[in-house]
Amino acid sequence: MPTRLTNYFLKTLREDPSDAEVTSHRLLVRAGYIRRQAPGIFAWLPLGLRVKSKIEAIVRDEMTNAGAHEVHFPALLPKEPYEVTGRYVDYGDGMFRLNDRRGVGYVLAPTHEEVFTLLVKDLYSSYKDLPLSIYQIQDKYRDEARPRAGLLRGREFTMKDAYSFDYTDAGLDASYQAQRDAYERIFTRLGLEYVIVKADAGAMGGSKSEEFLHPTPVGEDTFVRSAGGYAANVEAFTTLVPDARPSEGLPAATVFDSPHTPTIQTLVDLANAEQPRDDGRAWVAGDTLKNVVLAVTQLDGTRELVVVGMPGDRDVDLKRAEVAFQPAEVEAANEDDFALHPGLVKGYIGPWSEGGAAVLGEKGSTGIRYLLDPRVVDGTEWITGANLHEKHVFGLVAGRDFVGDGWVEAANVKDGDPAPDGSGPIETARGMEIGHVFQLGRKYAEALGLKVLDENGKLVTVTMGSYGIGVTRILAIIAELNNDDKGLIWPAAVAPFDVYVVATGRDETVYAAAEQIVLDLEAAGNEVLFDDRPKVSPGVKFGDAELIGVPKIVIVGRGVADGVVEVWDRKSGDRSEAAVDAVVAAL
Amino acid sequence: MPTRLTNYFLKTLREDPSDAEVTSHRLLVRAGYIRRQAPGIFAWLPLGLRVKSKIEAIVRDEMTNAGAHEVHFPALLPKEPYEVTGRYVDYGDGMFRLNDRRGVGYVLAPTHEEVFTLLVKDLYSSYKDLPLSIYQIQDKYRDEARPRAGLLRGREFTMKDAYSFDYTDAGLDASYQAQRDAYERIFTRLGLEYVIVKADAGAMGGSKSEEFLHPTPVGEDTFVRSAGGYAANVEAFTTLVPDARPSEGLPAATVFDSPHTPTIQTLVDLANAEQPRDDGRAWVAGDTLKNVVLAVTQLDGTRELVVVGMPGDRDVDLKRAEVAFQPAEVEAANEDDFALHPGLVKGYIGPWSEGGAAVLGEKGSTGIRYLLDPRVVDGTEWITGANLHEKHVFGLVAGRDFVGDGWVEAANVKDGDPAPDGSGPIETARGMEIGHVFQLGRKYAEALGLKVLDENGKLVTVTMGSYGIGVTRILAIIAELNNDDKGLIWPAAVAPFDVYVVATGRDETVYAAAEQIVLDLEAAGNEVLFDDRPKVSPGVKFGDAELIGVPKIVIVGRGVADGVVEVWDRKSGDRSEAAVDAVVAAL
Repeated sequence: MPTRLTNYFLKTLREDPSDAEVTSHRLLVRAGYIRRQAPGIFAWLPLGLRVKSKIEAIVRDEMTNAGAHEVHFPALLPKEPYEVTGRYVDYGDGMFRLNDRRGVGYVLAPTHEEVFTLLVKDLYSSYKDLPLSIYQIQDKYRDEARPRAGLLRGREFTMKDAYSFDYTDAGLDASYQAQRDAYERIFTRLGLEYVIVKADAGAMGGSKSEEFLHPTPVGEDTFVRSAGGYAANVEAFTTLVPDARPSEGLPAATVFDSPHTPTIQTLVDLANAEQPRDDGRAWVAGDTLKNVVLAVTQLDGTRELVVVGMPGDRDVDLKRAEVAFQPAEVEAANEDDFALHPGLVKGYIGPWSEGGAAVLGEKGSTGIRYLLDPRVVDGTEWITGANLHEKHVFGLVAGRDFVGDGWVEAANVKDGDPAPDGSGPIETARGMEIGHVFQLGRKYAEALGLKVLDENGKLVTVTMGSYGIGVTRILAIIAELNNDDKGLIWPAAVAPFDVYVVATGRDETVYAAAEQIVLDLEAAGNEVLFDDRPKVSPGVKFGDAELIGVPKIVIVGRGVADGVVEVWDRKSGDRSEAAVDAVVAAL
Repeated sequence: MPTRLTNYFLKTLREDPSDAEVTSHRLLVRAGYIRRQAPGIFAWLPLGLRVKSKIEAIVRDEMTNAGAHEVHFPALLPKEPYEVTGRYVDYGDGMFRLNDRRGVGYVLAPTHEEVFTLLVKDLYSSYKDLPLSIYQIQDKYRDEARPRAGLLRGREFTMKDAYSFDYTDAGLDASYQAQRDAYERIFTRLGLEYVIVKADAGAMGGSKSEEFLHPTPVGEDTFVRSAGGYAANVEAFTTLVPDARPSEGLPAATVFDSPHTPTIQTLVDLANAEQPRDDGRAWVAGDTLKNVVLAVTQLDGTRELVVVGMPGDRDVDLKRAEVAFQPAEVEAANEDDFALHPGLVKGYIGPWSEGGAAVLGEKGSTGIRYLLDPRVVDGTEWITGANLHEKHVFGLVAGRDFVGDGWVEAANVKDGDPAPDGSGPIETARGMEIGHVFQLGRKYAEALGLKVLDENGKLVTVTMGSYGIGVTRILAIIAELNNDDKGLIWPAAVAPFDVYVVATGRDETVYAAAEQIVLDLEAAGNEVLFDDRPKVSPGVKFGDAELIGVPKIVIVGRGVADGVVEVWDRKSGDRSEAAVDAVVAAL
């Protein structure tokens, strides 16, 4: 039975939705694929649901090929398991919480590690039951602070989440690899370019994690890669630590007046003017040690100041800092913080004071923790604050004149930084997350008591992986990548229909002929959307066809009386005539 | 790729779950189809999900045949639309409610009339866009007071809910009929016997409603039907009202002493002993007028007493009373209620007092509303309470001696009662609701402002229907109907697999031969579950096969060396030999 526009649920819109920030959102709403219900929450209209189902079918297929079996959990789950693992607290405001009529606490699950763990614990008890990989395609909820960009970051989204269960580390490696391979096949079938990068495991915990990023300048994630094959999410990038140097023979540090040096550059200029280097090389920003005061707020609300010392040509990258301090929140210290800590001489903060007493760092007088960038190795010399108003110090040597209380990866990453694996300089790029695989290890199994008997009858804790693909996000990215100024252009693998047949004019015989073509196309296995609207102008019909973006369009007009129709390729825009009885073959 | 039990996610259980009240729940848990997460909330394991998907596919197919298009709404929705229609309050504790991080109120949708109405309002504005039927298959949430019977009444459940939109009453009739016809086809394909009964529209509002009930003695709904074709849910049954009779010439009412008449029967016995009828017929319970005091609590908490007068051979049916007083809650009055109303002489309540003053009914002295059963028509004579301790009255005539403040359908329905359409006596039976179709009319469209321009350019309010099938409930009912003491016996249309192949023994060549049979069966289009577990006894394997209930079982044992396997029909229990190369044909 043909799907006819005269009774299909579809209304294309001439105007962009006022809240659309990105192309995919704008076009998916205008072309009648989705409709907003609340911030970050959408209804799926018939066209959108068809595309979503096709993506899900590809994901299902490759999950089956990876040996994973499908299950399905509710979105509404008891809060207890999330309390046991700590995520009930860790998720903060990002989790939707509610009580039932008896006052029992529930959550709308943001992800399902806990209940998958408990399900396997509930049913399995022996190593013989493992390995096991199970997955679901399910609607998840996260109360994002700023839901935005349409489906790219919603508060409800459809996700494929898979979980693997093994009792050996080698087993976990194999399960992880099987999912990783499936992800590569899925993205290839979807025509989505991807980069696999080392990632931070974040709130998930666990030992190893990789992200699949689609590289695009408009991506919200930054990643780095080297020509030698290193790739990492910028949050997971680790600094290549230089070798320590001997400090013997280095001159003693000297304090100098440095008024009017509000920036690193003014400080460097002053240094070059007043203390030129013996070898004639100019001082540069990287020769200074910048001391940045951060406020670190734990989930329980306690706020701690931390000073981070890093080369002056770096800035704090708050996302990297948040990973370093997770699950705490990190921000720059404010005026109140400084007022409470008069020992911090704003603009002139350093680890050391004249006379050699530590102001920051081990046993420092301020009591504030002082963490160092990994590049500040023993024996390096620095121009830095002297903890006195309008004074800095030259030649302060790490390890000799000051030590930190530890190391921290909080500085930004720059093009040209060396990859930690020695594979050469990295460059940064932008990407959108399209998949994430985690070796969770035993974190969840330990917290929830998932153990099995091994070959020797000994109880061992299970080791797990978790593997996520954002189905609705991928749909939005495909829309983001495949469009022009006329509308969407779906790749055949996920198009809502294979062919879009447009009948034009007012001649009923044309519509009858078009319907026969639709039936022939359907008989040949095509999914067809038939624009049979009798009183709509060809211009409007063609505009809708372009906006909706079915890859192949067949125009049936008066020429059909002579056995001729027009075949239109949405992507190339090519239009050519075809004989009616050759249309099926032509497509 | 064969689905092998060695890596499938399945664990059959020997013990019944402790909370299982019904067979379907017990077997679906034991056979590894579902697993409880919280009261009335279940996870779907691979076998269960397959059965559920098959039911959904049949529903989808018939929705398409009925011209309905699929959409999908979130479960999490803003509360405002439900406030506008009043259902936010009407649902009482039955609705899950929550706030987001900004304090904005949301609900987990129990059903989606409001947002479907708004969606159509959002996109459509002309009669030319109608009729429209759209549906979804979606997980719904209701905070049932007593979730029970496994999937039969859960707090989360999957439902197909369709909505039709028309601008004429005739259009609504046609849309309603199309869904009703689709339901008949769906239940026929699922092999589910059904009765279509008139139903009460309940909290949905609207003008006409029918329920599809599966007749079964364990059903939780009572319905009535006549041989002449009348069928109604007991809540929707209406009494055939007898004609009024002349009261001229009837003797005056007389009061008599009636101590020790705590029950209707003792009162009838006393009447027969002390006041025998002139014609010699004995007084029966139906000659007495029983006055029952009900407490009716509105949603805002106000509690009102109401007295219902009905023939003494009837009892109050609280479900029918709740329909009569909806959305209020109804219960029997308690001691406190009586204490507050000393005008009600417990055990001797009647509408009338000696001397002719009305105690109940129009301008009665108690101020309490007095409603009458429809059978208490003018001219009927009654034995009833005299509103004096230990006194009753004979020959009290309705219309002459007392009137009510209105009529109410609160009495129970009994076998032999006449059908309201004159089609003869009804009988009561039990059934389970499997579908419900509503003509909502303009209630939702009016509340939410859904209007379209008609042919004359005039704005008209749209008229709607809503049509629900409980997918997970149907699955449970099918399981409830198709089982024996060994386990489940799925009908082929919804079985998780078509064939279950069991390899027995320890001979690897048997397993290899079995695998080839599995591949041949799959190549012939069968879905096959392969029990390839090498170290499990045949007895356990056969027990699992019976418990899981795939309709056809193939046993591959040592005989395969001679080219013979066994084919086992799960339902009949018949086992017969078949040649290996004839297995595909044999099935």
